[in-house]
Amino acid sequence: MQLPSSLLENAVNEFAKLPGIGKKTALRLVLHLLKQDVTDVTTFSDTIAKMRNEIKFCQRCFNVSDGDICAICANSFRNQRLICVVETIRDVIAIEATQQFSGTYHVLGGVISPLDGIGPDQLNIESLTHRIQQEQTEEIIFALSPNIQGDTTIYYIQKKIQHLPCRVTTIARGIAFGGELEYADEMTLARSLANRLPVQQYVKS
Amino acid sequence: MQLPSSLLENAVNEFAKLPGIGKKTALRLVLHLLKQDVTDVTTFSDTIAKMRNEIKFCQRCFNVSDGDICAICANSFRNQRLICVVETIRDVIAIEATQQFSGTYHVLGGVISPLDGIGPDQLNIESLTHRIQQEQTEEIIFALSPNIQGDTTIYYIQKKIQHLPCRVTTIARGIAFGGELEYADEMTLARSLANRLPVQQYVKS
Repeated sequence: MQLPSSLLENAVNEFAKLPGIGKKTALRLVLHLLKQDVTDVTTFSDTIAKMRNEIKFCQRCFNVSDGDICAICANSFRNQRLICVVETIRDVIAIEATQQFSGTYHVLGGVISPLDGIGPDQLNIESLTHRIQQEQTEEIIFALSPNIQGDTTIYYIQKKIQHLPCRVTTIARGIAFGGELEYADEMTLARSLANRLPVQQYVKS
Repeated sequence: MQLPSSLLENAVNEFAKLPGIGKKTALRLVLHLLKQDVTDVTTFSDTIAKMRNEIKFCQRCFNVSDGDICAICANSFRNQRLICVVETIRDVIAIEATQQFSGTYHVLGGVISPLDGIGPDQLNIESLTHRIQQEQTEEIIFALSPNIQGDTTIYYIQKKIQHLPCRVTTIARGIAFGGELEYADEMTLARSLANRLPVQQYVKS
């Protein structure tokens, strides 16, 4: 695609670097911005740059934050002795969207994956064990990806903190709401049978 | 969707203003940028801002341009007495992609559409007639949308320049390549019958 201006071409190339955006979509977005007021486009670019430059990570849970401590950690109405351990900020947003969790989080920044060169030292695991000791945490809930890497990470952390008086749980695996039983994979179906619930408890939740 | 940082939220809102990008996609893009180096994100935002602030429009054909005159108008190998009249910059890019047109362009900036409040004065029509007179243009080719607004615009411009010794044509309407005859609309089919070509000419093109 030959573009009539190098300024336009550079902008298209920058947009095309974003995930899921090809050259044609990038051109559509750039031509849209070209039709907007200069001030609107300046606001757009400034907001993006400001976000990247000024965003902080909570020193306690490594969630994104406007200050040194994120709004969830600073909220005294939340149970500060309950920690949900997640891989990324996106998981925090997903769990927060349920409005069912009133504890705090700890963002690991990934899971242990030797094939990708990610060991325990690249993740926020040291700070998690330190935090459990310091804050006398009552329970940690693992909400990691249901795969080998996630399970390895759970196993590793659990070994490290087994001497501490802290309950360790993981979120339930099972058939998703609206999921068809016959299409569920064997692993999920087997686990959902093994971890079956009394009906009273199921109805309550 | 509750986001843990107002900086993040502002960035997501800015992305979500772009056409075809909803809040979820915007969040995915912003979290992607958050993982990139600060310099990369600064390059992204600077390139967008620079594009909008510094881009110029060719004083002759109103195509986007890095300078006062665009690369197409400045190219002496192109036929400067042949003008293809289009609605937008996007049309220029589409026609250039065919690599079959060696004339110049004139970007109207839209078509006459009284319902949308767009009259001839909002479009680059005055400059087109002026250009045809000044440059002793031999032919203008209309490549406008095949609808009432496009046809009105062709009619209006043609009336204005009918005293000038300039050939006026429009691009052919017909069945698209790969299009199924039975699914073509009546208008297209009727026009493609009325404007039928000698087979020799068809094979050559």
